[in-house]
Amino acid sequence: MLNQDDTICAISTPPGVGAIAVIRCSGPLAFAICDKIIRTGKAGPVSEQAANTIRLCTVMEGNDMIDQVMVSVFRKPHSYTGDDLVEISCHGSPYIQKKILELLVAAGARPATAGEFTMRAFMNGKLDLTQVEAIGDLITSGSRAVHRVAVSQMRGGFTREIQKMRARLLEFTSLIELELDFSEEDVEFADRSQLKVLLHDIMILLKRLKESFTLGNVIKKGIPVAIAGRTNAGKSTLLNLLLSEERAIVSEFEGTTRDSIEDVISIRGVHFRLIDTAGLRHTEDAIEKLGIERSWQKIKQASVIIHLLDAKNPAAELVNQIKQSRLRPENDQKRRIVVLNKTDLLQPEKLDELRHQLKEALPENDLLVLMSAKTGANLSLLEDALMEASGINNTTDNDVIITNVRHFEALDRALSALERAENAMDNRITADLLAEDIREALHYLGEITGEITNDEILGNIFRNFCIGK
Amino acid sequence: MLNQDDTICAISTPPGVGAIAVIRCSGPLAFAICDKIIRTGKAGPVSEQAANTIRLCTVMEGNDMIDQVMVSVFRKPHSYTGDDLVEISCHGSPYIQKKILELLVAAGARPATAGEFTMRAFMNGKLDLTQVEAIGDLITSGSRAVHRVAVSQMRGGFTREIQKMRARLLEFTSLIELELDFSEEDVEFADRSQLKVLLHDIMILLKRLKESFTLGNVIKKGIPVAIAGRTNAGKSTLLNLLLSEERAIVSEFEGTTRDSIEDVISIRGVHFRLIDTAGLRHTEDAIEKLGIERSWQKIKQASVIIHLLDAKNPAAELVNQIKQSRLRPENDQKRRIVVLNKTDLLQPEKLDELRHQLKEALPENDLLVLMSAKTGANLSLLEDALMEASGINNTTDNDVIITNVRHFEALDRALSALERAENAMDNRITADLLAEDIREALHYLGEITGEITNDEILGNIFRNFCIGK
Repeated sequence: MLNQDDTICAISTPPGVGAIAVIRCSGPLAFAICDKIIRTGKAGPVSEQAANTIRLCTVMEGNDMIDQVMVSVFRKPHSYTGDDLVEISCHGSPYIQKKILELLVAAGARPATAGEFTMRAFMNGKLDLTQVEAIGDLITSGSRAVHRVAVSQMRGGFTREIQKMRARLLEFTSLIELELDFSEEDVEFADRSQLKVLLHDIMILLKRLKESFTLGNVIKKGIPVAIAGRTNAGKSTLLNLLLSEERAIVSEFEGTTRDSIEDVISIRGVHFRLIDTAGLRHTEDAIEKLGIERSWQKIKQASVIIHLLDAKNPAAELVNQIKQSRLRPENDQKRRIVVLNKTDLLQPEKLDELRHQLKEALPENDLLVLMSAKTGANLSLLEDALMEASGINNTTDNDVIITNVRHFEALDRALSALERAENAMDNRITADLLAEDIREALHYLGEITGEITNDEILGNIFRNFCIGK
Repeated sequence: MLNQDDTICAISTPPGVGAIAVIRCSGPLAFAICDKIIRTGKAGPVSEQAANTIRLCTVMEGNDMIDQVMVSVFRKPHSYTGDDLVEISCHGSPYIQKKILELLVAAGARPATAGEFTMRAFMNGKLDLTQVEAIGDLITSGSRAVHRVAVSQMRGGFTREIQKMRARLLEFTSLIELELDFSEEDVEFADRSQLKVLLHDIMILLKRLKESFTLGNVIKKGIPVAIAGRTNAGKSTLLNLLLSEERAIVSEFEGTTRDSIEDVISIRGVHFRLIDTAGLRHTEDAIEKLGIERSWQKIKQASVIIHLLDAKNPAAELVNQIKQSRLRPENDQKRRIVVLNKTDLLQPEKLDELRHQLKEALPENDLLVLMSAKTGANLSLLEDALMEASGINNTTDNDVIITNVRHFEALDRALSALERAENAMDNRITADLLAEDIREALHYLGEITGEITNDEILGNIFRNFCIGK
């Protein structure tokens, strides 16, 4: 990988004009380099500035003053990178930012590559890999839900769980490896029944973590919600209501390739991707048929289906729509919210009656909301239902949720290896093969936290970072 | 104006995603407010953190961790604003930035208006008005030349000159006002001949400052350069050469409304606006005539005219073009660079001869460059000529250059008042009228530095600042 002995520098604040910008310089020569371009007046040079203090200084190009800046000094190992680190807070003109960077480079620093400051923090043992990835997620997080998962990961809860499992597995492996040393004597240092219980426990945990990825992935990308129903049910009115100005429409949504007609809204800090679908009805028109078939494909991809009904339809027909509809979720990864729309057009008594009839017809897992997309009445009930259907409400702060494909894949591979180990034990396979399976599981678990790593993994992770981080 | 007793907060780094972002909170309750949302672990609260130190802390929303941040503390009056000031350096996610700002507001801070931190610095006497304006210029500066002028202004050289003049004028005013108290006794405390010398000195200085605005304004907006010449002289080849990739084309140029066909290039840190002109030639075609007339209008607005000649033309005709051309500068605010193009097509001896002939024909102030726009030969000579014609080379770092229309207008008004005062003395007008003129001059000089100010002036200045500054 890159040379760790270089001193690196980069602009760490967002690009563009602002009141202030921050330039970082870190590495063995950070202080010496800053001494060359920073004049401190009567105070001693930057290299003698006390750790964790901040001072007003001047950046000079020869005898020309470039800017008045604030200089913060952090000393190894008590810095973000674990190396000596200087932060220069300058006036936020692009000209000044570029100039100071050029001066640092001329004085001996190298422009940092994307994520290189964080890479050094990892190399110096300040962060493990899942924390590194959490910081990447944190920086790009645009919703409360993504932010919450990233913060929890940054705090290291996930790593601790993985490391605990790994430590217990390691214990057994060393016992099994000991058996291999004494292979001719046919002894069993590792208690097989204890090992079996351990494998079982770990596999349950790994499965739980793997399963959390479904939710984690959906949190990260936004929960796909299909609004479907017959053409006259008020689909576009409801869409407009959800997209109305009071609700924050998320205009740029990180990392997802989205359909041009998908809108992302944020409800109580959770992102929902609204999938527009063409009106579903029976038709003989070939082109319309095609559009409707495309709608069904999209509905398949949704985690939540809003099934819109027109309250003006006869009760019997509505009951029939609920029961017969292809919109019924085909598995428990999906939830349906049946929304009876246009309630503003019915008398309260009639509505109450209808509610009872629909409730009776409703499959157990489905949710029912009575509202008016036109007046906005009971919109908050729909929001409650969306939150419940998203599954986010069922998680607590302490739940570890996987949002990262890399973690998911490593967990999957570790699980497969452990399943093989379990089979091996059931079939009384020799200790060396058993040891191999467990070592493989250990390897993949170690990859998650970075205890085991390689250039490819690191390259993939840090490539997604911005420069200056 | 705004309440100075409020505690204000804002994001001070450029908007968007970055590795880190900085949020500032300043005012009497800055520490108390930060104590509410920042958890410091075992260390004492932010309010007890030593001045000019920086610590790793956690921003909390109740029991939820929002981010790990670095907190810097500055104590009144040793801060940018002169009030207590906390800088929170957080992860650069827009979500986190917004969240921390919301938490500060919920804890009792008010979102700062544009430039309000700098306004407080002015109100607390940390900066004078010209320094405030210099900071605004510094933040938006996109060229070395603008940056250099802004830095010099930030260092206060201009203010010192104005204040010196003002102090000497004030002395005389108080003597004249004393005369008014004794008006019945017909005494002259203020020595009229000394006053006359002083007025004369100050007026020379004011005139010099006023004149520097021509250059200052041009530095700020980019120096307008017209490339003109007959249709076959190679105008577009030269334009393409100047705009070639090696040279930085300034795509967004601050604050100027520019013609769509104007390109801005940066040569040695100075911005030049290249004004394209239609080929100048005699024509009877009505529409072409109109285009050529428009070209002449544009040439009138240029500070520098590149008069392009085709070296393949007969020497006599070239001499004639130089002498007869409407491109000859009509005043000494303009410079012409005569460029003999297509030198690659002539023999060296022939070129030398032509150079002598053209030199003899050239008016004293004009510059001559022999080059080839096609091969790029001698382009650096044209750049030298552009730098010389710009007038920037003639200024030193110690020269005060006015770039601000507000300063220009105040200087103009002060100068008019002093001219009236001078006339008044020549015509032996009474002391009270003399005093009035001098007081008016004092007023306008005071407005420049902010010793005298009003809401309108402040509003205009700070309206141009970004929020967070």
